Amino acid sequence: MDLKSTIRQVPNFPKEGINFIDITTLVKNKDALKEAIRRMAANYLANPPDQIVGIESRGFIFGTGMALELDCGFVPVRKPGKLPAETISESYELEYGTDTIEIHKDAIQSGQKVLIVDDLLATGGTAQAAARLVEKCGGEIMGIVFLVELDFLHGREKLKDYPVVSLLHYDSE
Amino acid sequence: MDLKSTIRQVPNFPKEGINFIDITTLVKNKDALKEAIRRMAANYLANPPDQIVGIESRGFIFGTGMALELDCGFVPVRKPGKLPAETISESYELEYGTDTIEIHKDAIQSGQKVLIVDDLLATGGTAQAAARLVEKCGGEIMGIVFLVELDFLHGREKLKDYPVVSLLHYDSE
Repeated sequence: MDLKSTIRQVPNFPKEGINFIDITTLVKNKDALKEAIRRMAANYLANPPDQIVGIESRGFIFGTGMALELDCGFVPVRKPGKLPAETISESYELEYGTDTIEIHKDAIQSGQKVLIVDDLLATGGTAQAAARLVEKCGGEIMGIVFLVELDFLHGREKLKDYPVVSLLHYDSE
Repeated sequence: MDLKSTIRQVPNFPKEGINFIDITTLVKNKDALKEAIRRMAANYLANPPDQIVGIESRGFIFGTGMALELDCGFVPVRKPGKLPAETISESYELEYGTDTIEIHKDAIQSGQKVLIVDDLLATGGTAQAAARLVEKCGGEIMGIVFLVELDFLHGREKLKDYPVVSLLHYDSE
């Protein structure tokens, strides 16, 4: 199945000159949704993680799917102020300013094997911060999995300490 | 399996006097995650919807799980400014002020059968707004499904036009 053909590109969103990769047209297609999750999980069937960490909020879609496919738990990484119990935070740089994400301090036990999941790898800042959160909890990162990678943004360089797998690649704006 | 025993209650979050129902302890438990989704989907196996609509962002967790279980597509309802293509909006009242949610205008085809999914029914305002969005798209609402219902907030009254099913009930603060 050609998953790329189910993804829509929306020009000039969220701002002029950006060609936004819209995965909502993939996930509303039941065959594409199932196939994407099956293929994102396939590498890990023989050696599944203990926990999937999904990054708010499109990472919740693919992360939950992979958790069910791989028979493991799901842990959300969220924007500040959303998780109710004690959290650990990590900030990362944006083009202008910084952003912060959080994880529950007790979400991952020391030594647990973790896969981090998000829909899209752009500059890699969010995924790098998520990886640091998992490490602060004592988790062992098996890899970071994306549905889509924007190769021309070289986000993979920020994540060079981890195995990174992306299902679909876009090599130009 | 006693799913309630896997849910944590966090006192005084997000503010003094609120006892927050924390479902992250359920979803990080692989057996509870699987069982919750299986039971939320069970009523619809014989007559599955065409689309699951999940409300940002914990509704993405249970909504995606149900979409995979019921072999249907997944459509996100999101906060304003997050969906890249043409949207329809709906506002609803909060204790102080209003909030708005959006759906892609082309996310649901006229006549499609839709299940709306969220983690928790409190006052019902968000789910009611999501139902209006689905109806504006021409979708037929088969029901609204929650993991948890806070019975003492009577949110079900706002949703009386629809079949509402909740897996777990809390009857006092």
